[in-house]
Amino acid sequence: MYLPENMQISEQGILKISGVSCVDLAKKYATPLLVLDEVQIRDNINKFNEAFIKSGCETFFIAYASKAFLNSEMCKIIDDEEIGLEVVSGGELYIALRNNFPSKKIYFNGNNKLGEEIEMAIKNDVSTIVVDNEEELYKINKISKKYGKKTRILLRIIPKINPNTHKYLSTGQIDSKFGIHSEDLLKVTKNIKGLDNLELNGIHSHIGSQISEPMYYLNLVETFFDSLITLKERENVVLNEIDIGGGFGISHSSNEKSIDIFETINKVVSCVKTLTKKFEYPMPKISIEPGRSIISTAGTTLYTVGSIKKSANKKYIIVDGGMTDNIRPCLYDAKYQVYVANKMKEVENFEKVTIAGRACESGDILIEETSLPRLSVDDLLAIPFTGDYTYSMSSNYNGFLRPAIVLVNEGKHKLITRREVYEDLVTKDITNNIWQTF
Amino acid sequence: MYLPENMQISEQGILKISGVSCVDLAKKYATPLLVLDEVQIRDNINKFNEAFIKSGCETFFIAYASKAFLNSEMCKIIDDEEIGLEVVSGGELYIALRNNFPSKKIYFNGNNKLGEEIEMAIKNDVSTIVVDNEEELYKINKISKKYGKKTRILLRIIPKINPNTHKYLSTGQIDSKFGIHSEDLLKVTKNIKGLDNLELNGIHSHIGSQISEPMYYLNLVETFFDSLITLKERENVVLNEIDIGGGFGISHSSNEKSIDIFETINKVVSCVKTLTKKFEYPMPKISIEPGRSIISTAGTTLYTVGSIKKSANKKYIIVDGGMTDNIRPCLYDAKYQVYVANKMKEVENFEKVTIAGRACESGDILIEETSLPRLSVDDLLAIPFTGDYTYSMSSNYNGFLRPAIVLVNEGKHKLITRREVYEDLVTKDITNNIWQTF
Repeated sequence: MYLPENMQISEQGILKISGVSCVDLAKKYATPLLVLDEVQIRDNINKFNEAFIKSGCETFFIAYASKAFLNSEMCKIIDDEEIGLEVVSGGELYIALRNNFPSKKIYFNGNNKLGEEIEMAIKNDVSTIVVDNEEELYKINKISKKYGKKTRILLRIIPKINPNTHKYLSTGQIDSKFGIHSEDLLKVTKNIKGLDNLELNGIHSHIGSQISEPMYYLNLVETFFDSLITLKERENVVLNEIDIGGGFGISHSSNEKSIDIFETINKVVSCVKTLTKKFEYPMPKISIEPGRSIISTAGTTLYTVGSIKKSANKKYIIVDGGMTDNIRPCLYDAKYQVYVANKMKEVENFEKVTIAGRACESGDILIEETSLPRLSVDDLLAIPFTGDYTYSMSSNYNGFLRPAIVLVNEGKHKLITRREVYEDLVTKDITNNIWQTF
Repeated sequence: MYLPENMQISEQGILKISGVSCVDLAKKYATPLLVLDEVQIRDNINKFNEAFIKSGCETFFIAYASKAFLNSEMCKIIDDEEIGLEVVSGGELYIALRNNFPSKKIYFNGNNKLGEEIEMAIKNDVSTIVVDNEEELYKINKISKKYGKKTRILLRIIPKINPNTHKYLSTGQIDSKFGIHSEDLLKVTKNIKGLDNLELNGIHSHIGSQISEPMYYLNLVETFFDSLITLKERENVVLNEIDIGGGFGISHSSNEKSIDIFETINKVVSCVKTLTKKFEYPMPKISIEPGRSIISTAGTTLYTVGSIKKSANKKYIIVDGGMTDNIRPCLYDAKYQVYVANKMKEVENFEKVTIAGRACESGDILIEETSLPRLSVDDLLAIPFTGDYTYSMSSNYNGFLRPAIVLVNEGKHKLITRREVYEDLVTKDITNNIWQTF
């Protein structure tokens, strides 16, 4: 059985994450439970840092993409690792600021930033706003002027690259809702010259999610240089940053392939170096925005088996969570592997089962068909690689409560987000308002 | 232009819902905003009541399926209309009890009810528990015994009916994760005889969602009678309730067909009457669990246009909400229509546009291609028939805040659920816990 590097099996056949027993965690914190391994988060960040350093890149910037997962503790870990944070809303920005994340390391992205969000970003001196469209330029300039500030911006461009990924996860193709057409870049750059409160620093793109081949990033770098050279020759504008976004693919199960981070970063840096030499262009800062590739493998979701039932052709194992805490199988047809955390040494009596969630919805299937040792009610299942886009997309559908999140680190554990309680479901309801008219 | 019956257009070309201007609502409560029309909710409930009465059915029970949408005010409306409530979790049950909804009108459903939820239901004297599987019988009996109560139950059976609907919405097919196989019904009924704290009252099924033909319900009634007759002949058990579940189809746009409620209920009642006569079986109570068909048409979501952009082949209208407040287009490929609430009298300059949400995700498209008058930033869009499975499935993905909900009723309005605020995003986070070990 393949086991992620941060997991162990005890003598009694219990799964441990960073030395902490899943059975003990489930007993103490109940299930469903999202277990995040701090060591793994930090290791994943370091992989990117090291990749840049080894590739001989001197100026680079790593901004963790919050939308994959963000809570208060995560802000502190990211800050402690001294990398940046990419936010896409006032909400994510709030979580960062509230936890004293240095605003000078925050990039603000998004394809329809609200005026109040831009104001919040500028007032709080975020490092950079990634501009999605021309209108936004004027908004940002106006608000910057109001506060007497000069805002550093990157222009997000549509690279017209169609990576081989789920259609929902591809963001850089020709008809993308994100970014500025490269044909318009010259015009937009001209316009920026007239906007005194903007400082155009570079260009940005995000080709999509779950990219498994470095090639696509190299295509992107080439596209960037086409633009950089055009801007230099036609407008005499030299930029000092290229941001290749995120999307570094992560294998959640055997049918997916993780991208090689070292290889990718190394190739990207080499490509940038080659092109700067070729075109006699000053070496720009290379920025990246990894999210999934930092948090995915650090997360494991624990579920308790609640009921087991046979249908004509299937055996269902129904757990105490599902699409409300992990919608990826429903939404993206995402595949996962699963361990029986209290029966890791079982080698006999395997059978084909389907792991279903408890929502009143047929689509609530976590794993379609997998082979597991014979299960009983109250057995504990562990689905690894569920740090990304699970809690961040969770809902209260069916009146279910969102899970607790516990952090583990070499034998230690602590609760970092409490489980929701029933009371949370009605705190926003108001029943004593009286009717009004306009 | 087709306009739902509860909407009007003012002289200035402003869309009104039950006499209340959408522009005024957006100004007062901001957007995205879910507007619920109380009159429409009550009308939809009455349609079912009237259908039963007109069909000459004397004992029937309507339980609103909470999972389509539930908040505190909704509990009060349902209660005021004197119908029942179907809940599928402790969370939904809590919302009901907290709002003094009479527990004697609550049905508790679900395919993996937790022990603590069953206990909560029994302690609070819910009317009926719909039993999903054999194991549950023993749990319910044990807990009922503990509290010295006799719990009324229905058995959910798999009817093996495959309605013509989205695979995620079909719940009664042969390999469903829900319910008991009809072959096992005899055995299960025998076992119930030995469980003193259970009172078997009837059988239940739910064939799926978005059912557009009465035929499927008639098939279900026939399947029920096969079971009823078998139980009577073989076990001398006569049941006095059949619950056909919900799933009454609602058209959200021109490509869907709403089921005719009057026709469906009338045919179901006739079918039951015919079969009771044929088999000399006492007329059972007929129960239904409509959710979508009560709340869908009562709900309209208002969005403000934030940015407009052209890609090579598309024009995107990007609004201030999207998949986080309505995941149905992403998840079920659901289609909607849309109005420009401040330009209802425009007849010229229509163009093809795509309405996109503001999440950093390509899949966040609300309406793929539709024809609308030329739009500007700050125009107000209204997507009708969004009462069902929108707010109930909403998330904080991208750090977005869940919308406010306002109730309207013939020119009056009141806030019934407040908009989330940034602070809500961190209230469950804990940053001062110290490390522990087991």
